[in-house]
Amino acid sequence: MKDAPATLWWDTASSSIRYIDQTLLPGEFAIVECTTVDRLATAIRRLEIRGAPALGVAGAYGVALAAATCTKIDFGEFLAEVSAAANMLRSTRPTAINLAWGIDRVLGKISPVTDLRSARETAIREAQAIAREDTGCCHAIGRHGAALLPDTCTVLTHCNAGALACSSWGTALGVIRSAVQAGKDVKVISCETRPLLQGARLTAWELSEDGIDVTTITDSMAAHFMRAGAIDAVIVGADRITEDAVFNKIGTYMHAVCARHHGIPFYVAAPLSTFDRDKTERDVIIEERGREEVTTMGNRVFVPEKAHVRNPAFDATPMDLITAIVTEHGVVKPPLDIRSLLSRTSTI
Amino acid sequence: MKDAPATLWWDTASSSIRYIDQTLLPGEFAIVECTTVDRLATAIRRLEIRGAPALGVAGAYGVALAAATCTKIDFGEFLAEVSAAANMLRSTRPTAINLAWGIDRVLGKISPVTDLRSARETAIREAQAIAREDTGCCHAIGRHGAALLPDTCTVLTHCNAGALACSSWGTALGVIRSAVQAGKDVKVISCETRPLLQGARLTAWELSEDGIDVTTITDSMAAHFMRAGAIDAVIVGADRITEDAVFNKIGTYMHAVCARHHGIPFYVAAPLSTFDRDKTERDVIIEERGREEVTTMGNRVFVPEKAHVRNPAFDATPMDLITAIVTEHGVVKPPLDIRSLLSRTSTI
Repeated sequence: MKDAPATLWWDTASSSIRYIDQTLLPGEFAIVECTTVDRLATAIRRLEIRGAPALGVAGAYGVALAAATCTKIDFGEFLAEVSAAANMLRSTRPTAINLAWGIDRVLGKISPVTDLRSARETAIREAQAIAREDTGCCHAIGRHGAALLPDTCTVLTHCNAGALACSSWGTALGVIRSAVQAGKDVKVISCETRPLLQGARLTAWELSEDGIDVTTITDSMAAHFMRAGAIDAVIVGADRITEDAVFNKIGTYMHAVCARHHGIPFYVAAPLSTFDRDKTERDVIIEERGREEVTTMGNRVFVPEKAHVRNPAFDATPMDLITAIVTEHGVVKPPLDIRSLLSRTSTI
Repeated sequence: MKDAPATLWWDTASSSIRYIDQTLLPGEFAIVECTTVDRLATAIRRLEIRGAPALGVAGAYGVALAAATCTKIDFGEFLAEVSAAANMLRSTRPTAINLAWGIDRVLGKISPVTDLRSARETAIREAQAIAREDTGCCHAIGRHGAALLPDTCTVLTHCNAGALACSSWGTALGVIRSAVQAGKDVKVISCETRPLLQGARLTAWELSEDGIDVTTITDSMAAHFMRAGAIDAVIVGADRITEDAVFNKIGTYMHAVCARHHGIPFYVAAPLSTFDRDKTERDVIIEERGREEVTTMGNRVFVPEKAHVRNPAFDATPMDLITAIVTEHGVVKPPLDIRSLLSRTSTI
């Protein structure tokens, strides 16, 4: 199994962010050179870059890019402009916590610095550290999670919690990759994940490129295959974890309900940067995206204009439907005490 | 609320079947003139005509068309050719029972006839009777089912069990139409129904044309809206009902599991011609359709070639998840005794 491609990185020579445009996959593999914060914000809104951990890295690189491209000479004005750019980036997507987390971590590092050059260098260094740590987290999540899977099994996943959702390796797909690397015989059922088909386009692409056996189904087929005994475990990523719920791509909750009905374990794989110790489910905004994501595919409109459309991008799965959460520090089982979890592990 | 359009009918002047091509909706409303049994078989395979009751009517008209176009003069040869055409039509789709039911009913009427002209007239008359009865069934199902719905409610449906799936009015959508006609305030959530989007293309079109409030969602959103308390009942059609299971469009089972989890009633609306008294779930073949239905939309391919694809067109929902079945003779609750049900009502 070859190592998965990096999803986004800092290009030192051109002081820009490079990333794989995920809207074009699997038909086209294209690297975009991003030189402005506005272009990055567009890339995040259009889901050219998506996935909670990757958004953390993108937020961090975004602050570095804001610092690198800021023309202010006065340090106070510099900080004000970088903070404004950071706030704009933070507002691009409300549900995933990692975006704000990555932005705030870099902002926190440059605030105490007093000269422009150090601030720019610090921002880039911190963003690169976040990307490196993310890859390390994914490998640790992979090791811990692989131990949960039987030696021979079929695992269902939803959306893309893979290398493309992180800096590399992946969270849910990191568990699968690590299990395969450890010699387990793991087959994957990848739900296509309407409306934007990240499961079909990204997960099936990543895994089949790695030589892992993957079958794409529509989201509505999952329960049918669960009832047929064809699925041994479900594993998904997360965009935010509060003490009472896991927020993840719309459809996750449906799979959790169906997994419970069939007695199938339901695992979530996510780094601690996904955990929100300050909020509960009712405080979290679920992003509602545009009508056209549901109505239009390729060159055809499939929903009549007179019909309404709803398009929540995420749903909340209550903790009691979750068997275990795999983090870089090990496997935790609900009920969660997030404050204690984060304080216990912050020194590791 | 205007009456829904007829879905398919016999055109006496040209001795041909006319039907709405359902693959073109909602973008284009086109009536096809079908003059050969081979063309009808293609239309059924391509889902230009679909929906269990409509397939019963199509099968019946197909035998009439075979009789009308047969050039044999010897009555034995005529019967043999019509029977061969009927067998070919019967094999186009294995799961819906109504197709075979409609074919066999017309065949049974012409077998005792001894001259060509009477046989042709009998076939057309019987097929037209089936279409008329189907419309009558739908209105009766509508009346019985409307009584189950609260005066103000939001009903979730999957796929299209509407006028387009029948000769007119619809089964599941017939219940909704009849409830609205009776003055109830019914809003509808229509799941898009991947892979072929009958819910988005056909149900949302039918209902919005009728002025009924309809919202399209992806199939994976249903559980999320159930948890939010936004859905009061689920109602779907059926392709075949055995004593132990309801076969319907893939995704139906998922909705039934989620409805049970949330304590929401799950109704099936279907005429008695959908009931199969001779088989149980394990005897029924679930049609597996082509890969491209899942991988391709409009002009784009969304699944990489190296990934496998599964595409079962139907699933089976066990009786214990079904609150009630609405037939033209009234509402029945599981457990079912289909033989007794059919014998009790055959004289009505």
